[in-house]
Amino acid sequence: MAKASKHKSALKEQDGVSQQETTNTSSIKAIKQKRKSQPTANDLVAEILKGNITALSRAITLIESKNTSHLEKANTIIKACLPHANQSIRIGITGVPGVGKSTFIEAFGKHLTAQNKKVAVLAIDPSSSLTKGSILGDKTRMEDLVKDKNAFIRPSPSGESLGGVARKTRETIILCEAAGFDTIIIETVGVGQSETAVHSMVDFFLLLKLAGAGDELQGIKRGIIEMADAIAINKADGDNLKKAKLAKVEFNRALHLYPKKESSWNPKVILCSALHNDGIDDIWKIIEEYIVLTSESGYLNQKRKDQNAFWLIQTIEEQLKGAFFNDSKIKEELQKQIQLIEADKTTPFAAADYLLSLNK
Amino acid sequence: MAKASKHKSALKEQDGVSQQETTNTSSIKAIKQKRKSQPTANDLVAEILKGNITALSRAITLIESKNTSHLEKANTIIKACLPHANQSIRIGITGVPGVGKSTFIEAFGKHLTAQNKKVAVLAIDPSSSLTKGSILGDKTRMEDLVKDKNAFIRPSPSGESLGGVARKTRETIILCEAAGFDTIIIETVGVGQSETAVHSMVDFFLLLKLAGAGDELQGIKRGIIEMADAIAINKADGDNLKKAKLAKVEFNRALHLYPKKESSWNPKVILCSALHNDGIDDIWKIIEEYIVLTSESGYLNQKRKDQNAFWLIQTIEEQLKGAFFNDSKIKEELQKQIQLIEADKTTPFAAADYLLSLNK
Repeated sequence: MAKASKHKSALKEQDGVSQQETTNTSSIKAIKQKRKSQPTANDLVAEILKGNITALSRAITLIESKNTSHLEKANTIIKACLPHANQSIRIGITGVPGVGKSTFIEAFGKHLTAQNKKVAVLAIDPSSSLTKGSILGDKTRMEDLVKDKNAFIRPSPSGESLGGVARKTRETIILCEAAGFDTIIIETVGVGQSETAVHSMVDFFLLLKLAGAGDELQGIKRGIIEMADAIAINKADGDNLKKAKLAKVEFNRALHLYPKKESSWNPKVILCSALHNDGIDDIWKIIEEYIVLTSESGYLNQKRKDQNAFWLIQTIEEQLKGAFFNDSKIKEELQKQIQLIEADKTTPFAAADYLLSLNK
Repeated sequence: MAKASKHKSALKEQDGVSQQETTNTSSIKAIKQKRKSQPTANDLVAEILKGNITALSRAITLIESKNTSHLEKANTIIKACLPHANQSIRIGITGVPGVGKSTFIEAFGKHLTAQNKKVAVLAIDPSSSLTKGSILGDKTRMEDLVKDKNAFIRPSPSGESLGGVARKTRETIILCEAAGFDTIIIETVGVGQSETAVHSMVDFFLLLKLAGAGDELQGIKRGIIEMADAIAINKADGDNLKKAKLAKVEFNRALHLYPKKESSWNPKVILCSALHNDGIDDIWKIIEEYIVLTSESGYLNQKRKDQNAFWLIQTIEEQLKGAFFNDSKIKEELQKQIQLIEADKTTPFAAADYLLSLNK
């Protein structure tokens, strides 16, 4: 390529005219120069610890990269940031599309930055894409918060499996904490599997609901209500207010039917209107109350330990399963065994034994 | 061994005196005789298909055995029974200790056998033991049902893991169905993991609750209410009746807050008193209604297919995990990695990568 002028090619229409060689040399120089200017892992860590957002973004891009050499660098950065992590409050926020999550997070985030808090907003939503309302996909989302120098907003890496997004989000939290963010908000859409992942990486889990829709769960996934440390009924304003109050009573009653949480925290139901900035401060007060209670009881610390163990085991299990079920021989035989089961010619257990025997 | 007298051994104290040879020969004869009298797999299958309870019990004992040759025989029997299985209604019944499960199952079972139904009651409770209220551990449990010729009651195999019990129970269902049992009841204590396993092997899931305790969930595990196709509030008699009626209203309201079930079935809340035989027939009517609805919609058939797929995948995953985590090297290194995570020296993900690398 560097010697293009000496090289016959159908693409070369006028031999001797092209300045290909010179052009290439200078491009390569530029690339080499750029590579040299790429900060080392140590450089990035030093800048992250100073709160440099550009360095933070760059490091997160390394975490999200599929390039092996980037991953190595990313792992070095994560390890160096670890001793500076764990100092934030991690809040998970979920709710179906249309519940007003962006407006809520903007109002909530602004409320916190106004108190000089540093807020990082991360999304964990493997199904999201530009057309499906991904965080920041719509430029009008969180308009003010984006401009706020004490806020940092980062969407999910696109085209990733839930396991991939979860891991990258979890590692991004470490970097954000090392960069001095004291409040980490993890946003998810409460319709898939992602809220379980979010629940397993946050201290406090907030469910957003719509006013006046308490009589049918608005498509929210089963089990999410049980995870919630608080339910905020959003858009509790104007004509909605009466319905919202009714919904609050209903949810309080429903929560009442669940067994006491391990945290010994009683989940709260609150009304709010993110649009009118109503109730936002109450939600923050509730979270603070929760943090005080669970810090004192030691529950918060234990929960984070348990979450680490969860991610360790979860990652191993995912990989073991992936390696087995992605094997082409197994894939083929699995289909055959399923057909035999459906024809009452074998049991699921005998089929499992057979498939596992192929793996040896 | 048969020629022991010609064999020098330190164990032989007085050569020529011992009658070892004769003794051994007769023992071996007796064992051979006994082996001969053991019915073959084919014999057992023929008897099971005739509804012979002794043969059924023997075959289940083979399923529960840890002896490899027994397991082979068991698998032959299961395969031969498979084409005759799948014809029953499978009902899961759960509730915490004290809710009156035994009394309920006895009343419910008698109600069915009185209609000439054949009822098998299986327990799935790995934690059970004679002292912990295992099924039949207490001889006074289900006194009448035990004597009923149309009923068959079988406890969980003891000393087993949940996975083991679940597999054996699932295989026992096949044999019971082949033996002509048209109603299979799987009993579990709703405080552990076992109810998820039960839910994955039955058509209908019934939760038993206590009257007047609707305001605190009596220690029932989170998520069980969402699994229930019906909630029966037991001991709804005498002074309890008023409280039971209130509880019914509360549970109906709580169920109302959940999203619609995939079966499009609306879970029912019913009052009953197993002791006074009140409401038992209503529960059976509800189950029949459910079976009609889900058979017509095709949901029941699909559910059983999905359950088979679940057990296939579940069994494979359990084995993969077991093989990894029971490895002694992994066990040792896992502990070290957990310590490193707790000291903020590594992340759960890096630790997982490292442990998986040891497995190659």
